[in-house]
Parts: sequence; structure tokens; C-alpha cells
Amino acid sequence: MAFKLIKKDKNSFARLGKLRTGHGTIQTPCFMPIATCASIKSLDSIEMEKLDADIILGNTYHLYLRPGDKIIKKLGGLHGFMNWQKPILTDSGGYQVFSLSDIREITEKGVRFRSHIDGSYHMLTPEKSVDIQLNLGSDIIMVLDECAPYPATKEYIEKSLEMTTRWAKRCLNYFEDQRSKIKDQNHNLKLKNKKLSPLLFCIVQGGTYKDLREKSAKQLLELNFDGYAIGGVSVGEPSEKMFGVVDWTAHLLPEDRPRYLMGVGKPEEIIGSVARGIDMFDCVIPSRNARHGTLYKFKNQKSKIKISRSPGEFYEILRITNSKFKVDNSPIDKNCGCFTCKNYSRAYLRHLFVSKELLAYRLATIHNLNFYLELMKRIRNSIK
Amino acid sequence: MAFKLIKKDKNSFARLGKLRTGHGTIQTPCFMPIATCASIKSLDSIEMEKLDADIILGNTYHLYLRPGDKIIKKLGGLHGFMNWQKPILTDSGGYQVFSLSDIREITEKGVRFRSHIDGSYHMLTPEKSVDIQLNLGSDIIMVLDECAPYPATKEYIEKSLEMTTRWAKRCLNYFEDQRSKIKDQNHNLKLKNKKLSPLLFCIVQGGTYKDLREKSAKQLLELNFDGYAIGGVSVGEPSEKMFGVVDWTAHLLPEDRPRYLMGVGKPEEIIGSVARGIDMFDCVIPSRNARHGTLYKFKNQKSKIKISRSPGEFYEILRITNSKFKVDNSPIDKNCGCFTCKNYSRAYLRHLFVSKELLAYRLATIHNLNFYLELMKRIRNSIK
Repeated sequence: MAFKLIKKDKNSFARLGKLRTGHGTIQTPCFMPIATCASIKSLDSIEMEKLDADIILGNTYHLYLRPGDKIIKKLGGLHGFMNWQKPILTDSGGYQVFSLSDIREITEKGVRFRSHIDGSYHMLTPEKSVDIQLNLGSDIIMVLDECAPYPATKEYIEKSLEMTTRWAKRCLNYFEDQRSKIKDQNHNLKLKNKKLSPLLFCIVQGGTYKDLREKSAKQLLELNFDGYAIGGVSVGEPSEKMFGVVDWTAHLLPEDRPRYLMGVGKPEEIIGSVARGIDMFDCVIPSRNARHGTLYKFKNQKSKIKISRSPGEFYEILRITNSKFKVDNSPIDKNCGCFTCKNYSRAYLRHLFVSKELLAYRLATIHNLNFYLELMKRIRNSIK
Repeated sequence: MAFKLIKKDKNSFARLGKLRTGHGTIQTPCFMPIATCASIKSLDSIEMEKLDADIILGNTYHLYLRPGDKIIKKLGGLHGFMNWQKPILTDSGGYQVFSLSDIREITEKGVRFRSHIDGSYHMLTPEKSVDIQLNLGSDIIMVLDECAPYPATKEYIEKSLEMTTRWAKRCLNYFEDQRSKIKDQNHNLKLKNKKLSPLLFCIVQGGTYKDLREKSAKQLLELNFDGYAIGGVSVGEPSEKMFGVVDWTAHLLPEDRPRYLMGVGKPEEIIGSVARGIDMFDCVIPSRNARHGTLYKFKNQKSKIKISRSPGEFYEILRITNSKFKVDNSPIDKNCGCFTCKNYSRAYLRHLFVSKELLAYRLATIHNLNFYLELMKRIRNSIK
């Protein structure tokens, strides 16, 4: 089993776990910074390693279109391409097809879409998505799902989740074929340290409807996946609706498999979801906010944090371009150990942002990702 | 004396020297990367230090307008502000006033200009320029000069250079007053390691007219400056005209003072100018080219380089966005020891540029600046 549940929290549904992959072990609960185009925007892979992220996320849609999964395969997979030796999860490409491509046409077969880059037409099927992710050399592969819009009618969501189940099954079948090939290769190579084959996660859909979430979870539980994601959240619904979905869904999922809440979220949403039994997160918020000069700072320097369904205000936000930082020679957070806080002042950062210097985006991103990764450490410490 | 001439080349006018400043010693011939707005575009100061640059250049015009020299003074000078502890040379602001500001009006008193940022009006006088540079905490201060356009009539250039001399004199007088105050402070502090007061360099003008260059040099030699720059080159004139100016001017300058050729240049222009007796250079070419994906590569890996008035082809240029690099898994230059070449492939860099990822500009800048700094090392090795 790839996932090992180490401990359960006394006061909540929070869980401490370890997830073994072909490129190392991930401690959960974990946050996955997003390397959309094979780069965490403005950061290099070496500084990501120093930030102590266990795993990053790559976007299949972007990498398939540019530079192309076959090219990346030739260049040593995504790990070799971007010089990152720790685990990588790739999404299925589905979400971006629905949100970024010019037009799209969904059929039982898959989804036909037009590239947002050059207008070319492409067909993404469940099998094709797995194939791309295998070419990328992903450690955790996601099944292709339809991420239905919010709001949507119950009828639409129900039809959609049923197709998502059929697609998940097709992904699993195709993946099992490929996985057995990898195992055969490993066997033939007689390697001592055999490369672990990738893991496959499915995605529970069902919008904001309790019975549909249950239906989706039930259908997917009949299949055997390495991990279970909750999708179709963080698509514009209010925070409480998202928490409702997590409440209904998390306890339906098998205890011995990791649970991944896709695209979430704000720091308080992460704690609230951990308290509801979620193990894995990804979100563009820390890096996107960083590039807009919105920076995070803990209110205290304890190594633990209260895990609660509705955590209080445990952090502050600095809008670094605010003129009050003009002559502020202190770091963003004097208790923060990140490269940015150890070397540069608020006044300098403010100046870089106001002057639109490229360095601004990188220094801010380092700090915000460090904040999120430190948040996860505090969460894990608290469960321990 | 701040400058020490260590050795002269046998086959050319090239010189090996050392220049002592308040923040350390610079080995010459040297190249100064440009930190226009208190940042070498896309790089942080720590990685600049790792690149082993002895000195960087800050732009007075930009820093005066934003964040303001008085703010920088409060924040520990430019050294404290950008966390760079090695020497800094600042220009006078004159060049940018002429090239960037919306309108300008030159009088004997100084130059009145409108900010390119917010349209506000400012007056830059010789005394004001020195004052700003003192506030910035510069190690090497440049006098305010008029950098005449190219082409310009001989009459214009002659009038201009004569005013430049009068301005240089005013800078020197004002600077000497301030310097004696700094010395008094040092004396009162009775410090063991007294902070070295900054150095003041003047600028020879005279356009592309031999007699005017001689006139300007002669006038400035009557004053006593710590270093002599050649200005008004690299303003659009062809390379051979620039070399002509250097030929006429370099040998007129005192042997025991450093010679700085402002704004030059391409790698072959640097070698050609070193061969003509120049010690210091600054130029945006390596960093600007980097941001456009134009990368440098030595043709061989020797630690020396032939110093010649017209060096042959000793380097190649890679346009990294070229499709031939699509699946090229080798570094930009397999013999290069820079961070970029040690960690990333041409294919990855090409992908980052094509995808307009911020990381592209930084990785390319690191490589190109490393190339220029390595060029200077090879030049110094050759003179040794």
C-alpha cells in the first residue's frame, strides 16, 4: 500500500499520513505548489527544494500543448526536464480544457477542444490523458473528469458525474494495462530498487448536491484507486458550500487511501478541510497573491496550530505596495526563516513591486509558499 | 592612492590593477553589471555575489525618482537597501536625464527635467548629483556631465564639453567639502577600520572629434580626480569611431588612475578597449540580451583569452528560442560553471522563453553575466 495512516487527531477528523511514490515519500497533510508550465512561476527547482516542498503539481493541459508530452518524455520526463527529483502529481487536463480552451465539445468519447495558444484542435480522452501523464513521468496520475460549472442544474451534474465514473473506469483499465507493462519491465531489469509505478487517483464529483456526491463516491469506491480526490469545488461556490461538500464526502472515502481536495484554498480553508479529514491540497492562491504583492504572516511563532473546523484569525495579510512600508526596514515577518525574510526588507520589496522589477515576484513567491508549507508543518505537528 | 597599477601587458596597452573602495577592492579590468532600480533585473543580491562580481552599478536618475535617495539613505544606503556588501558605482543621472526624461532644459546651473514616471519637474545640478550619490552611499561617484547626442555639430560638442568641465569642477569642490566632513567624522569616531570615503570620477567628453577629446582631457587633468571616465561613446556611433575615441583619449589619461569606458559594450569591444588601456566597463548588453533569449558561449574553455585591438571570433551566440533547441538536453555551454548550465538544459530554457515564464529571464541573465565576468577573469589572467 502506498498510503500509510500514521495517526488520527483526537479532536477532529484530521489525519497524519505518509504517501510513498516513485520519487520519495510525501508527508500528509500536504500542500502542492503548482508548476503549471514546468516552473513554479518565477522560481527554479533548486529553491523549491530548499523550500522543502514534498511534492509539486504539473498541469497536463499546458504541458501537452507546450512543449508536448512526447518531447518531455525524451528529455527525461518532467523530473528531468525541470530538474526536480521529488514527487510530482499531474492533473488530467480536464479542468483547463473547460476553463481555458476556446471551444470544447464533450462526448462520451472525450472532450474535443481548441488550444488557447494557437487555436489548433485536440481530442482529450480518458486514455489519452493517462498516456500524457505517463509520458510526463508523473508519480500521481489523475483520472479525466468533467468538472461541471457552478452553478449547474441537478440534472446536468448527475449526467456529468455518471460519465465521470465511466471515464474513471476507462482510465483505470488503461492505466492497469500500462502499470503491468511497467512492472514487467521492472521484473526484467531485476533492479534492486525498482522504480515504483505511478499511482492513480479518481475524482468524486456531484456539485453541491449531497445525494449526488454520495452517488459519485459510491460508484468510484467500487473501483480500486490509489487515492480519492474531491473535485468540482473551488469553482466559484462560497466557502461554506465547499465545506458542506467536504463534510458529506470525506467520511465516505476509504480510510486507508489519501484524500485530495482539488484547488483549495485559503489558509483557513486548508485547516478547516484538514479538520474534516483531507490529506492533500493544491492551489494557485499563495503564488498568484505573491505576484500581486499580497503577503502572508503568522500571528504567532508557535510550531503548532489549532486544527479546527473554523479556525480563528491566525494570520495577517500585508499589501506590500502600501505606502506605509516605504521606509520599513524590517522583513515581511521577523520570525520567518525564508530567503526573502532573511535578506530583504519590506521597503525593498515594496520598491521592487512599485518599480515592477522581476525580482519582486520571485521574492514574494518564495515567502508565500514558505508560509503555506510552514502552515502544513504546523498542522502535522499539531496532529502528532 | 585608491588605484594600484599592478602590471602592464607586453603586447598591448592592457593594464592589470586594483582599486580600493569603502566596500572592498576591485580587480581591473572589470565589468560592472547594472542594477538600475536597486536590482540587477531578475537577480537577487545573493546570487550576484555568487556570480563573483566585484562591483555593480546603480542608476542615480532612477533611484532619485524612486524610491528617492533620502529614503535609501534612511534604509542603510544602497548597500543596506538591496543587501549588497561589495562596491557600488553610481552614475550622475545625467545620461538618463538626456535619454529618458520627457523634456529637459540645460543651463549653466544644471538640467531641469520632467520625470518619465509621473511628469514631475526636477532640477539636477552638479552639486545635487553628488549629494544624491552620497545619500545612496556610493563607493564611486560620477560627476554630472552633458552627454551630447550623436551626431552633433563640432560647435555644440565644444560648448558642451566646456560646460562639462565647469560642472566637473563644481562637483569636485562640493565633493571635497563633503569628503572632509566624512574624514572629520572618521577622525572623531577614532575607528580602527575607518570607512573609506567615496571616490570621485570625472568624464572626458568631446564627441568623435580628436582635438575636442584632447581639450576635454587636458582641462580635466588640471583637476585631481580619483578616476577618469570616457563618456559620450556607445550613443549610436559605429564601433570603429568608438575605438578611435579610445585610441586618442586613453593615453592622455594619468597612468596611476583607473580608466572607465562608459556604456561599453559587446565582448569584442571590451577586449579591444582593454587592449587600448581601459580598466572598467559597464553595459546593459549581457542582461538585456539575456531577457531576449540571446545567450553567449565561449568557443573554447581556456582560462586565458587573446588580448588584441581586434579580437577574432572567440564566442558564439545562441538564440535560445530557435526550434533546433526543442529537444536539446545539453546545457547552454557544457564547459560553463554557472547555476543555469549546471542545472538546466537548452530545451528547458527554450520552453521557458516560449512560454514567457518569469524563470526564463533570470536563468538567462545568470548565464550571460557569468559569461561577461568570466571574460574579465580570462582577460586578467592573460595580462598576468
